[in-house]
Amino acid sequence: MKTRKLGRGVAVVGVGMSQFGAFPEKNSRDLFVEAFRDMRGSVDKGLDPNDIEALYIGNYSSDLFEGQGHTAPIMADWLGLTPRPATRIEDACASSGVALRQGLLAVASGAYDVVLVGGIEKMTNLPIAEVTDTLATAGDVLFEIPAGFTFPGFYAAMATAYMHKYGATPEALMKVALKNHDNGALNAKAQFNSTIAGVMAAKKRSAEKKGRPIPTWADEMEFLHDDRANPMIAWPLRLFDCSPVTDGATAVLLVSEEIAKQFTDDPIHIIGSGQASDGALHDRPDLTSLGAAKHAGQMAYAMAGITPKDIKVAEVHDCFTIAEIIASEDLGFFAPGAGHEAAEEGLTARHGSQPINTSGGLKSKGHPVGASGAGQVVEVFKQMRGLAGERQVDRDVDLALTHNVGGTGQTAVVHIYERK
Amino acid sequence: MKTRKLGRGVAVVGVGMSQFGAFPEKNSRDLFVEAFRDMRGSVDKGLDPNDIEALYIGNYSSDLFEGQGHTAPIMADWLGLTPRPATRIEDACASSGVALRQGLLAVASGAYDVVLVGGIEKMTNLPIAEVTDTLATAGDVLFEIPAGFTFPGFYAAMATAYMHKYGATPEALMKVALKNHDNGALNAKAQFNSTIAGVMAAKKRSAEKKGRPIPTWADEMEFLHDDRANPMIAWPLRLFDCSPVTDGATAVLLVSEEIAKQFTDDPIHIIGSGQASDGALHDRPDLTSLGAAKHAGQMAYAMAGITPKDIKVAEVHDCFTIAEIIASEDLGFFAPGAGHEAAEEGLTARHGSQPINTSGGLKSKGHPVGASGAGQVVEVFKQMRGLAGERQVDRDVDLALTHNVGGTGQTAVVHIYERK
Repeated sequence: MKTRKLGRGVAVVGVGMSQFGAFPEKNSRDLFVEAFRDMRGSVDKGLDPNDIEALYIGNYSSDLFEGQGHTAPIMADWLGLTPRPATRIEDACASSGVALRQGLLAVASGAYDVVLVGGIEKMTNLPIAEVTDTLATAGDVLFEIPAGFTFPGFYAAMATAYMHKYGATPEALMKVALKNHDNGALNAKAQFNSTIAGVMAAKKRSAEKKGRPIPTWADEMEFLHDDRANPMIAWPLRLFDCSPVTDGATAVLLVSEEIAKQFTDDPIHIIGSGQASDGALHDRPDLTSLGAAKHAGQMAYAMAGITPKDIKVAEVHDCFTIAEIIASEDLGFFAPGAGHEAAEEGLTARHGSQPINTSGGLKSKGHPVGASGAGQVVEVFKQMRGLAGERQVDRDVDLALTHNVGGTGQTAVVHIYERK
Repeated sequence: MKTRKLGRGVAVVGVGMSQFGAFPEKNSRDLFVEAFRDMRGSVDKGLDPNDIEALYIGNYSSDLFEGQGHTAPIMADWLGLTPRPATRIEDACASSGVALRQGLLAVASGAYDVVLVGGIEKMTNLPIAEVTDTLATAGDVLFEIPAGFTFPGFYAAMATAYMHKYGATPEALMKVALKNHDNGALNAKAQFNSTIAGVMAAKKRSAEKKGRPIPTWADEMEFLHDDRANPMIAWPLRLFDCSPVTDGATAVLLVSEEIAKQFTDDPIHIIGSGQASDGALHDRPDLTSLGAAKHAGQMAYAMAGITPKDIKVAEVHDCFTIAEIIASEDLGFFAPGAGHEAAEEGLTARHGSQPINTSGGLKSKGHPVGASGAGQVVEVFKQMRGLAGERQVDRDVDLALTHNVGGTGQTAVVHIYERK
C-alpha cells in the first residue's frame, strides 16, 4: 500500500472522556455529552462549539446495544451541533480509531478546519450473554460463529498458537494484566481503578465481612492462578486476561495546523496514520500476528518518517492480554516472539524501556468498544503534555502512538503523534 | 456552515449495481460482488482491482438484518482487496451517499488516488414487521418510537402537514408514483420494472387465471384510489406511495482528477458536496421541509458555484412520494409549496422541464437503504454519458445532482456532478 502526503497538517487540541464503567441510569447520549464537556475543558484557549464543523462518531452497535440506529445526528443534536454533518463510522472495536482517521482526512482535504471525533458504546444494557453474542457478530457469522466462537475463544486460539510457537507461558499474560491494573489504579476514569493487590485486598475484606474463610494468597501470581478468584474463560485466558464490558464515551478535537494556535500553544500533531483490513481469523495462515496491524503500523511509520524505537509511549489494543503482546510485536517494539519476554521483564511498564498502556489499557480502564480508539488519544495527549499525573512516564514524550483493532484483526488503525 | 475548496478534484470513472429485488438465495457479499463486477465493466479503459486503495461501504444495519457486524472488511475480503483500509459508514438510508462524501474527502486529502465507494443492504431476510421495526430505529427510539411511529407514519405526518399547508391532494402523490414507475419500467435492474398500467394488467391476468372477477379500473388513477389494489398504509400514504423493501448493492469508483484519464476519457467530476444533520422529527418547528436537505443542497451549490436551474437531471430520495415533492422544493427546483403542482403538471417527468428520478427512484427501482445513495450515482453517470437507453432524457446533461436522506431527515447529503 502506498503512503502519500496529506494535503495539510492536522493537530489534536483537546481530548476528553466520560467516566468508564457500568451506568444503568445513563444512555450513550449522556455519556457523549460528558466526554464532550471533559474535552472542552481541555482546550487551553477555550472552544466555542459553534466553531465545530463536523462530527465523526465511532460506534460499534448502538443498533444492538440500545436499539438505536442512526446515532450520529442524535449525538450532534444532543450537543447542539446541528445542522453540521454527523457521520457514524463502524469498524467494530476500531470504530473510533477509524473515525479519527476519517476526521484527519476530512480536515486534510480542506473541507473542514475543526472536526469533533468521538466514540460511544453503551454495552451494559444487555445481559452478559447477549453482549457476548453481539460482540461475536464482529467475527464472520457465516464461517466462524456457527463453529461456536465468541471473542474470548478467538483470542484464546491466538494465545494458544502464540504459546505453542514461541514457548510463552500464562505468566507472561498475567504480567500484562498486573501492569495494566497498576496503571489503571492511577487513572480516576478507569472502570477498574485498582491494582491486582487492591482487588485481592477487597476480596479479603468481603470474605471477612460475610464470615467466609479469608483467602490466603501469598502474592498476585498465586491469586491469578486461583481458579475461583480468576476463573478460566477460554484456555489459556482467565477472567483477568479479558477486558471488561463497559459503558463510555470519548472525544477528540482535531483542527488544521494553520489554526491550531487559536486553541492552544501546545498542539499535538498527527504525523502518521495507517489503516488496514484483513480476512476473518479462520482464513489466515498464522494466528500469532495481525497482518492488518502490521500494515497499518507500516503505513503510519512511513508517513511519519520514524521507526518504532522513536515512540516513547504507546496505547495499544489490549482487548485480551495476548493482544497486547502480539501488538507489541506487530508494531515493531519487539521482534516476533519476543513480546512475551518483554512483558515478563517489565519492559512495557510505566518506567520500562517501552511503556505501553499507561492509561490502564482496555483491560483496566475499560473497553466501551466503539469509544476505545478515541480514548487512546486521551492518554497520549496527556502523556505528551506531562499531564498524566501519577502515571506520567519518566521521560519527554515527543512521539507517541495509538493502535486500535477491530474484531479479530479484520481492521487495524494506527496513529502517530508529535509534540513539537 | 462554511464551504471550502477541497485540496484537489475528484471524478467518478465507474458505476455499478446489482439487480435490485428480493433474493433469498443471496447474502450481501454476493450482492456486493455483483455490483462490483458491474462497476468494473463500466470503466472504459479497465480497472485493475489492485489499484483500489481503500473501500468505503455504506450500510444501515447488517447487524440487525443479517446478524453480521463489522461488514466493511468482509466486503474487502470478498473482493480480494485486503489489506486495504475498509470503512463502514452509517447514516441510516443516507449511508452510501455519506460514504461517497467520505470517499471524496479521502481522495481530496491526498491519502488515496483510487477509492471504491459502495453500498449494501440485505433486507428481506427478516419478516416484514421486523424490517419495519429495524427501520424505525433510524428515528429517535427514546422520544418517537414509543409513541408508535414507524417510517410510513413519519412520512405520513410530513404529508399531512404539507397537504394542510399548501392544499396539496393525494393525486399529486400518486403522480409521483406513476412517473417513477414509468421510469422504472425502462430500468432492467429495477425491483419494480413495470408501469402502473403494467401492474394493473398483471393483476387483471392474475384474477382471470384464478377465476376471480376481473377488475374494471378505468385508468391508473382509479386503480391508485382502489383500497384493495392500493391499500392505505398510513393516511394519506397508500402502498404505492411507499418504496419497497429491497436487497441490493451499489458501487462507485472515485479517482483523483489528475489520474482520471488512466481510466476513461470521459470522467464525471464531483464539483459539489454537502452534508448536514438535524434533530429528530418530533422536535422540529416545521414538517413540510427537511432542514438538513436544504443545508446540504446549499453547501453543494455553493461549492459547485451553480444554481438549481443549472441541474439537468436529479436523483432524489423518494422513500415515499411526499419525500420527492419536498425534496424538489428543498433543492430549489420549485418554490416552497409548488412541488406538488410541478408533480401534477409533469414537470419532473423524463422529458419535463426538471427531470427527477429517471432511474425509477427508490419507489420503483427499489430501496436497499444503505445502498441507495451510491445507487443514485449510477443513474446520473449514465444520463450524463447518454447511456441511459430508453430512459435517456432529451437534453445534454452537463450538470446533475443526487440527494440522499437518512431517517426522517436527520441526515441529508447532496452531490453535484459535471461532465466537461
